[in-house]
Parts: sequence; C-alpha cells; structure tokens
Amino acid sequence: MADMFKPSRRAFLRGGAAVAAGSVAGAAGAQSPDTLITELQDWASITGAGVDETPYGLPIRFEADVIRRNVEWLTASPISSINFTPIHALDGTITPQGCAFERHHSGAIELTKGDYRLMINGLVDRPLVFTYEDLERFPRENHVYFCECAANTGMEWAGAQLNGVQFTHGMIHNMEYTGVPLRALLNEAGLGAAGDFKDKWVYVEGADASSNGRSIPMEKALDDVLVAFKANGEALRMEHGYPVRLVVPGWEGNMWVKWLRRVEVTDAAVESREETSKYTDVYEDGTARKWTWVMDAKSVITSPSPQMPITHGKGPMVISGLAWSGHGQITRVDVSKDGGITWETARLGKQGDTKALTRFYLDTDWDGAPMLLQSRAMDETGYVQPTKDQLREQRGENSVYHNNCIQTWYVNAEGIAENVEVS
Amino acid sequence: MADMFKPSRRAFLRGGAAVAAGSVAGAAGAQSPDTLITELQDWASITGAGVDETPYGLPIRFEADVIRRNVEWLTASPISSINFTPIHALDGTITPQGCAFERHHSGAIELTKGDYRLMINGLVDRPLVFTYEDLERFPRENHVYFCECAANTGMEWAGAQLNGVQFTHGMIHNMEYTGVPLRALLNEAGLGAAGDFKDKWVYVEGADASSNGRSIPMEKALDDVLVAFKANGEALRMEHGYPVRLVVPGWEGNMWVKWLRRVEVTDAAVESREETSKYTDVYEDGTARKWTWVMDAKSVITSPSPQMPITHGKGPMVISGLAWSGHGQITRVDVSKDGGITWETARLGKQGDTKALTRFYLDTDWDGAPMLLQSRAMDETGYVQPTKDQLREQRGENSVYHNNCIQTWYVNAEGIAENVEVS
Repeated sequence: MADMFKPSRRAFLRGGAAVAAGSVAGAAGAQSPDTLITELQDWASITGAGVDETPYGLPIRFEADVIRRNVEWLTASPISSINFTPIHALDGTITPQGCAFERHHSGAIELTKGDYRLMINGLVDRPLVFTYEDLERFPRENHVYFCECAANTGMEWAGAQLNGVQFTHGMIHNMEYTGVPLRALLNEAGLGAAGDFKDKWVYVEGADASSNGRSIPMEKALDDVLVAFKANGEALRMEHGYPVRLVVPGWEGNMWVKWLRRVEVTDAAVESREETSKYTDVYEDGTARKWTWVMDAKSVITSPSPQMPITHGKGPMVISGLAWSGHGQITRVDVSKDGGITWETARLGKQGDTKALTRFYLDTDWDGAPMLLQSRAMDETGYVQPTKDQLREQRGENSVYHNNCIQTWYVNAEGIAENVEVS
Repeated sequence: MADMFKPSRRAFLRGGAAVAAGSVAGAAGAQSPDTLITELQDWASITGAGVDETPYGLPIRFEADVIRRNVEWLTASPISSINFTPIHALDGTITPQGCAFERHHSGAIELTKGDYRLMINGLVDRPLVFTYEDLERFPRENHVYFCECAANTGMEWAGAQLNGVQFTHGMIHNMEYTGVPLRALLNEAGLGAAGDFKDKWVYVEGADASSNGRSIPMEKALDDVLVAFKANGEALRMEHGYPVRLVVPGWEGNMWVKWLRRVEVTDAAVESREETSKYTDVYEDGTARKWTWVMDAKSVITSPSPQMPITHGKGPMVISGLAWSGHGQITRVDVSKDGGITWETARLGKQGDTKALTRFYLDTDWDGAPMLLQSRAMDETGYVQPTKDQLREQRGENSVYHNNCIQTWYVNAEGIAENVEVS
C-alpha cells in the first residue's frame, strides 16, 4: 500500500483512485473505489436517529478511544491526581470540555449556583460577598485561553518515559471563557485601603477541601484575570470548577483556582504549600526558582506521534501540532525531520489568539525514511523554545515543573512513532 | 428584593452585601452573606470525584435543562425534523456539539471512517474516490463559522408564536471546523474538462437516505467551502454528519450536507427538491425568490428572554445576545429598550470572526419599568438588520424561510419576558 503513492501531491490520487464515473474498478487497497461508493448501502436505505433521541449528545461510539486517560503509577489516589487530554486525536484549537484534562487536589466537588458564594476580603474598603447571580450583573468578556498544568511534560525531565503525546503534553486545554474581570470585583470592594495597591497581592482559594490557595501579584489580578462561569459557551463542567473558576491567562494551571470562594487582598505573598514546596523547581545547588508563573513558549507535534502512527505509507502527509505561549501570541513554528539539524517553517491553521493554543501544519511528502520529528515555537517576545539539553543546562535535573523543551518523536520506516531523546 | 439595588453600579453591592470580614451579618436576601461563606461546608470536608470517573464528561446534573429541545407540533416525525440549541442558556460564541441543533431529512446515520467514501465526478478530468484517510493527507484549515437553518425564525413570519429564543432563533450553532478546502479536492480531480469552469456548479449530496442534494455555484465551491471532519477540536458528532460534512460559510444550513458522499461538477444547477419547492420564499404574487443562499445579518437578545427572566430586580444588569452575518463580520449591534424608538450601541464580547457568531453585551441599569427589548445588527457591507414590517413589505407573508428581522421581547415589571410584535 505504501508504494502506491508518488512523491508529488498532484499525482497522489491518480493512480490508485481514478475511476470512470459509474464503473467499478476492482483494484485492491483502501484507496480504491469499491462497492461502498457504487452500490446502495444499508445506511442509505433506512431512517436514522431522530431529533428527540439525544437532548445532550456524546461522541459517536466509533470515537470511544478519544477520552481522558490517567497513568496509575504517577500518583497514588485518583482524587489527588491528573488525567490527560487526548490531544493526539484532536485537531484545530478548541478543547471540548468533555475530554479536557483534570487535576484535582481533593477531588471534584458538586456545588450549586444557589450555594455558591465568593468573598473579597483583606485590604479592601468594603469586604463583600457575591452570589452567583451578583456576578452575572457585572460586565463580562469572552476570551480563548490555554490552561497548562505546570507539571505538563514533567516526566520528560528524567528522559523519554511516557510513550504518547497525550501523556507527555496532555495536561493542557484551550477554551473560550466568559467571565467578569477580577479587576471589576476588586474595584467594587475598593482598593483605597490597600494604600499603594500596585505592590499588593491577592490570595485566592477554592471551596474544595484542598482550598488550593495561591498568591497572585496585584498587577496580574488587575490585568487579564477572569472570574469565569462559562467555557466553550456553556457552564463550566463540575471537574473544571462549576459554577465559577479563576482564569489566569498564560500562567500555570494550578493558579486557575476552581470552585473559587475567596480573594483576599494582602500586602505580601502567602507563600502557601502550592507555591513553595510544590510547583517550584529546585536547582542543582539546592536553591529554587521563585515565582515561575508564566508558561514559556512551547510546542509539540500531535500527529504523527506514538499514539498516531503513519498508516498510509509514503507520499503526501500532514504533520500537525500545537504551540502556545504564556507571554502572548505564537508568531512562528518550525518543524524538523532530522532531530533539529534542518528546519522548515510550518503553516498556522489560523492566527492564534494571545495566550491560546495555535494549531500548526507542515504539508509535506514522506519518502518512507525514518524521521526524528521536532517542533520549535517562537512567540511575540522573540523567545525561542529551547532544546532539552539547553533547559537541563539552565535548570539542572531536579525539576518536575515548567518543562517547555523541544520534544522528539522517532518515526520508523513503518510509520511507528516513539518518544526518544536526541542530543 | 428588587428595591435593595440602587441605580448606580458603584453602589450596587454595598448595601446588601458589605460585611466585616469574619462576621456573620444576619441580613435577609440572596445577596447577603450567610453561613455559606463563614462556616465550614460539607463540600470542603470531603474528597470529591476522582480523575478516573469520567473519561468523557457530561455537564453537571444541575444544568440538566440546558439541552436541545424539539417542538412536536412543528413536524410530524422526529427523523425528518429539527431540534433547537439552548441559546438562551449559553454565553460567549462557541456552541458545544452536545447541544448544537440538529436537522435531519431522514435521521442521523452511523457511518464508520472505514466505510466512508467521497466521490468527485461529473465534468472533471479524473473522477476520484477518496477514503477518509485520503482526506487527512490534504492541507487543512481551521475556521469558526455559524451554521443557521434557513427556517430559523421561520414561525415569526406569521407573528409571535414560540415563546422562547431557543425556539425562535435556536436553529443555529457556531463551531471551530477543521477540514480540507473543497477547492483542493476539485483541483485534484482537475477542472480542465469543465471548460470555463467559473460558470459551472457542483451538486453535493449526503450518504443518508434523503441524500439532501444541493447545487452550489463553482465560485463559492472554490472560495471558502470546507470538507470538514472536526468540530470544536474533536470528530463531528453522528448527528452533525460524522465522519465528514460540508461547511458552506455564511450560507443556509441545508447546503452544509452531512455524511458527504458525492460532489458532481455540472454545467447547471440541478434544481433539486431542496432548492425549489423547499428553502424558497414565495412572494405575494406567486413568484419566488431564487438562490437565496446567503444568510443576511441578524441578531437576537438571548438574555433576558422568555426562558431567561430577570430575577434580580432593578439595578445593574447585562443584556446579552448574538449577532451574525453570512456576508462577513459584524461591525456593530444596537439595543433598544423601547421597541426601536431609541438605540444604544452594545459592546462586542470580542471582535467576531467573519461569518461567525458575535456575542454582544449592553451593560445597563434597569429602573424596573417594562421594556420592549430589540437588537439590530450591522455587518461589514453596511447592511442593517430590518424590522419585521420592512421584511414583510419586501417579501409578503407567504415565507417560511430567511427571516432575519428584528425580534422584540416585552419585559414586564416583574422581569418576565415574552415574545411580542411591535409596529
């Protein structure tokens, strides 16, 4: 099957699939015309499902493998664990809520809109408590943003361990959020009491048992942070913080507090568990990087990848992946087939939004030779995604978090891909 | 409850909700602080759901009313009928596939990727048959587009009949599509045989029993039509044409053929059932409008609306809705509270994509007096959405399709909204 394709795209379907209209060519292979197109099929002879059957629909049963997956050995308990978005099987940029990764510190809780309360307290003129309905009365905005767990790609620090892009890079999702700027709620409470409020912080926590408290500098809180209640048009799902979560664009997912219950204005960072012993990278000398909130520019090839082998043999193919930067827009993505020796500039599916996933494609021809596939993202600040060696040189090998290095897939002559390292 | 709010937004939460941090004020009303914020709650004392519980998630049970609904009396059989997107309960612009409206002419069919075939035939150099895998080898694009049934708002021609924006305007959805430009497949088949191909047509049909054949002028087919296989990142749902549907940006939904099986290049329009006796508007004199493909600029207020009463009483509120145009971008939306006598310009949630839903908001204060709410969209061509009277004057009263008139909701002093007509 592989050798039926010519290296030129113009030629690619002529040989195998050309057919005089109406005739049935007997050629073998999946690309050949066959009775599927020339004869009446069962599905064209029946009536199908009616409009009253699925008030809220799920994917068709043939897509049952496009699901969140967890890795049992990574953590002991599913209520303080992670699962991964099936990014190998998705395309475009939007992540459906149903398969967007989850990270819980004490499990996903059920909280009604009626029981929901949000308190703004601390160094404010008027401590306030908002109901869900109150929040809906403030001016709101819509933005598409990515949310990436700081530990995404974390296992790669120790070498190529997880053989699938769902597991190496799947702690990310990208949704259109609707919410109220946190700025509007802080202004309602009044920042006069905070003196020179620009040097102050907010401490945010959730209503779940973990509370997952995090400190955010006031400059960010007043910039683009959203108190969000909708994702991709509909209510947040339970596992994403229903009814209200914080959206902290471009910053590590742990700060996107779910079931948001409190925002306290403080004069210093709290230095909570989640921002000291966790979500921090320790250098070789035992000191730690502090305040590593922004997710630097990163990219990965989603297809082909270990879960998405090349099944069509050589000839025309699309290499596809995702790129993102917590600093703004992705301006360019390059793809290498030889482990970083030579690079080709990829095409962007559409100009990406700021701090949002950007889809890239390299339309190419595969000669059937093994490849060492890599992608390299650049963002509007001029930053270029580093190699794994460069990152280890800077950070040492103690880290779990903030790994944005270039990923390598080895693709063999059969089109099978695996996770490898190159130096 | 209503009179606890002052007309100024700055004042709106001070009276009811201000609280010394840590104390419990005994004030009545939903906006008051209460034990929900000051005492330990059950959901903060338990572990919640783990990451292994929902490989593919659904909305939380409290959102069970955000579903597609059909209207039994509209058509006799659910397999040749419609249901409606719950646009009253959504926000932002993206429509989740799970609640995006369905229209079937012979029911939704199950078709595997393995069984899928697409034939390009007729006036082409090389008739071709593509498998699903073949399509994945062509360069693909990502675009957000709205899909509106030509019959959306159709019952309004005869007056205000359906008391809910889900039913008057819910035959619309808006998704990010990934697919191959139809242009690429036509070029692969070769248009040389079509002579001056610019005057030619394509006839497109689906694999379901209805086949739902439609003629599309070659100029459009070579412009922005997509052969799409993903929506909002994941595979199309069964009810939206899995595995492949046609996307015809800005044009009536009936042309967006699902389970796409054939594209025939022809030298004239076929004048099929679906483009003659159906989807056509008949004037008062018995003649018909011909080739009414483009969906003209339109908008509607989704909240408040008959399914979304104002429950918070007077004071600050957000009036929200959707606008779209098959001719390109929405440039402005105005909102009237007095049935079209005076207008205020709304704020756009973000700059809308071309031929995509655009969210608008009017941040306002409600004095508690009854309102006649209307919205009026303008697009990049300068076109202004007409009133129902203007539309009836042009088209008469025989139409079912292509009603893009200004919609009116009467909101009474209790905040209850209903569908009315004003002249």
